[in-house]
Amino acid sequence: MTDDPRLTPLAASLPATVPFVGPEAAERSMGQPFVARLGANECVFGPSPKAIDAMQRATAEVWKYADPESHDLRHALAGHLGIDAAHIMIGEGSDTLMGVLVRLLIGPGDAVVTSAGAYPTFNFHVAGFGGTLHTVPFKDDREDPEALIAKAKEVGAKLIYLSNPDNPMGTWHDATTMNRMIDAVPDGALLLMDEAYCDFAPSDAIPQLNPTDSRVIRMRTFSKAYGMAGARVGYAIGPAPLIDAFNKVRNHFGMNRISQIGALAALADQDWLSHVRSEVAISRDRIAGIATRNGLSALPSATNFVAIDCGRDAAFAKAVLSGLVSRGIFVRMPFVAPQNRCIRVSCGTPADLDAFAAALPEALADARNAVPT
Amino acid sequence: MTDDPRLTPLAASLPATVPFVGPEAAERSMGQPFVARLGANECVFGPSPKAIDAMQRATAEVWKYADPESHDLRHALAGHLGIDAAHIMIGEGSDTLMGVLVRLLIGPGDAVVTSAGAYPTFNFHVAGFGGTLHTVPFKDDREDPEALIAKAKEVGAKLIYLSNPDNPMGTWHDATTMNRMIDAVPDGALLLMDEAYCDFAPSDAIPQLNPTDSRVIRMRTFSKAYGMAGARVGYAIGPAPLIDAFNKVRNHFGMNRISQIGALAALADQDWLSHVRSEVAISRDRIAGIATRNGLSALPSATNFVAIDCGRDAAFAKAVLSGLVSRGIFVRMPFVAPQNRCIRVSCGTPADLDAFAAALPEALADARNAVPT
Repeated sequence: MTDDPRLTPLAASLPATVPFVGPEAAERSMGQPFVARLGANECVFGPSPKAIDAMQRATAEVWKYADPESHDLRHALAGHLGIDAAHIMIGEGSDTLMGVLVRLLIGPGDAVVTSAGAYPTFNFHVAGFGGTLHTVPFKDDREDPEALIAKAKEVGAKLIYLSNPDNPMGTWHDATTMNRMIDAVPDGALLLMDEAYCDFAPSDAIPQLNPTDSRVIRMRTFSKAYGMAGARVGYAIGPAPLIDAFNKVRNHFGMNRISQIGALAALADQDWLSHVRSEVAISRDRIAGIATRNGLSALPSATNFVAIDCGRDAAFAKAVLSGLVSRGIFVRMPFVAPQNRCIRVSCGTPADLDAFAAALPEALADARNAVPT
Repeated sequence: MTDDPRLTPLAASLPATVPFVGPEAAERSMGQPFVARLGANECVFGPSPKAIDAMQRATAEVWKYADPESHDLRHALAGHLGIDAAHIMIGEGSDTLMGVLVRLLIGPGDAVVTSAGAYPTFNFHVAGFGGTLHTVPFKDDREDPEALIAKAKEVGAKLIYLSNPDNPMGTWHDATTMNRMIDAVPDGALLLMDEAYCDFAPSDAIPQLNPTDSRVIRMRTFSKAYGMAGARVGYAIGPAPLIDAFNKVRNHFGMNRISQIGALAALADQDWLSHVRSEVAISRDRIAGIATRNGLSALPSATNFVAIDCGRDAAFAKAVLSGLVSRGIFVRMPFVAPQNRCIRVSCGTPADLDAFAAALPEALADARNAVPT
């Protein structure tokens, strides 16, 4: 389609791309729903029943806009985290907060550093504001803090992205390593720590909050462990002047009223979070077991998904993935070598994993036929 | 608060402003809730019970992201409107869609035209992307299509904003006038017709859809007549290349799953929409009657609110507004002269309007004491 001639030069230069195609598009083209939805790292164990109840009760008052200051949720998070609410910004999912952050910091030609194969939506935002993205490779299937810092110094980056635990590999660094990285952030740069999966990680993986530290902003979400991906609630934790700067450009009335109320109830139900963590741990183990039984190896994971090394190249992993998808198992895979020798399987219910366990041997057999060694 | 030094020059130049302060902030400072919430043009008559039911049923599946293509809602709207879905973009409320549109078209210094005192959130987006805003005055309490077009030609505007029916005055133009305006849009410019209130307007106020016309994009919402302000669902109708350009930068996974499902059910219940229209018409008449009984005059309205001319200047109207707010009646007023001789009262339940009717004489008496003629 020809572009509209009135677009800015930057907008005209961008592809009408999408970071991820949704499973619904695949379902429409297949003409049937997936049997198991294990591709988007959603939390099939769902939100707290108390959050569901709170959201149901909130529906009748959805004629009201939400509080644009997200006062109650912000203060509940502040209490939960033991920090001042001035360090917290609520947004319509971390994706939105990342977009606003990039907009605040990055103009045409500004340098940004991330890992090759890290979160595509972050890259989408950087491109969308004209930033120049520099990447360093993963190292031993983990993001490489030293290489990221070295690259940031080399290119004079204003923004550095790292997820811990990491998507799409599920790996992580310990707090000591992360604190060392924070200490090494060069002057004039900001480290964005994407902690979407922090609730699944071992406690020694997550550095203590030190929200006055102007070198780092951390983003977390209700989309993963809290089971509310469809509700779009994320939050940023950072230095107060930077957090306040979000007010310069953010969509003040963007938050969904039902979601804010649901997130508040979800946060209050930490027992449910513990339950989800247990279910996820069981599911991770089972995914690893299924991989092993099929002669594949599962990477250790601190998230609600498992990267399975298919043992060969990207073409082979892609064939395995296609075989799974065609059998009704929605999974995804990393985009970039060498991580793309893997497929990525989200934790699921026992029934979801039964379906995965049944489909994997067939998908592997098909892939071995289709992609000769 | 000192700005973060890493902000872009544009971001650093922006105030950490907010287009509207929410009623919740006032409630927190008063220490009690408003008796009547009549300030944000929300639809107190609520969404369709079928939409509430659909949203309640959707809460348990909120662990899933929403379809990023909003396929079902987009196609339902296309069917409802009798146009092709390629002309429709769904977004997290019209505010978000306006932000994306401005981002796509407007860079630093690009000229934009609107009316003095029209929608502040649009102006917020223009400032946020560095555009230069040019305004023309309202004429006889209506936006002035001829003056807007003349100003657009004078300054070489890329974007022209007009709401029909209009907020904050509630006035409107007929389709013939609007079509004449569309025909006069200069080359290289785009007319943004904000039709948030179109469902309340007389049928001859809304020009036929002609979505292939590259001169105009129209924005509508589920926040007003459909009673779903807190759900954040809006849509744009425009030429396919421009609609597709939203995909270059929009937050693809920004839509709330519960809201998409709710909007689909709300759209299907046109009987409820008719019921809301009747309730709104009754409420408008009653607000006008209350105004008249107090010696004030109500402007004719094609929306779910009524602008009441307090008969004197802005200081007086502001005193009336303060008197209402301090008596638990949340209302707002226009920002700019001469419209700011008015207060703006949203339609409410009989109980809401009883409270308004009781408070207005007292607020007026106080204002007459406080602001001598």
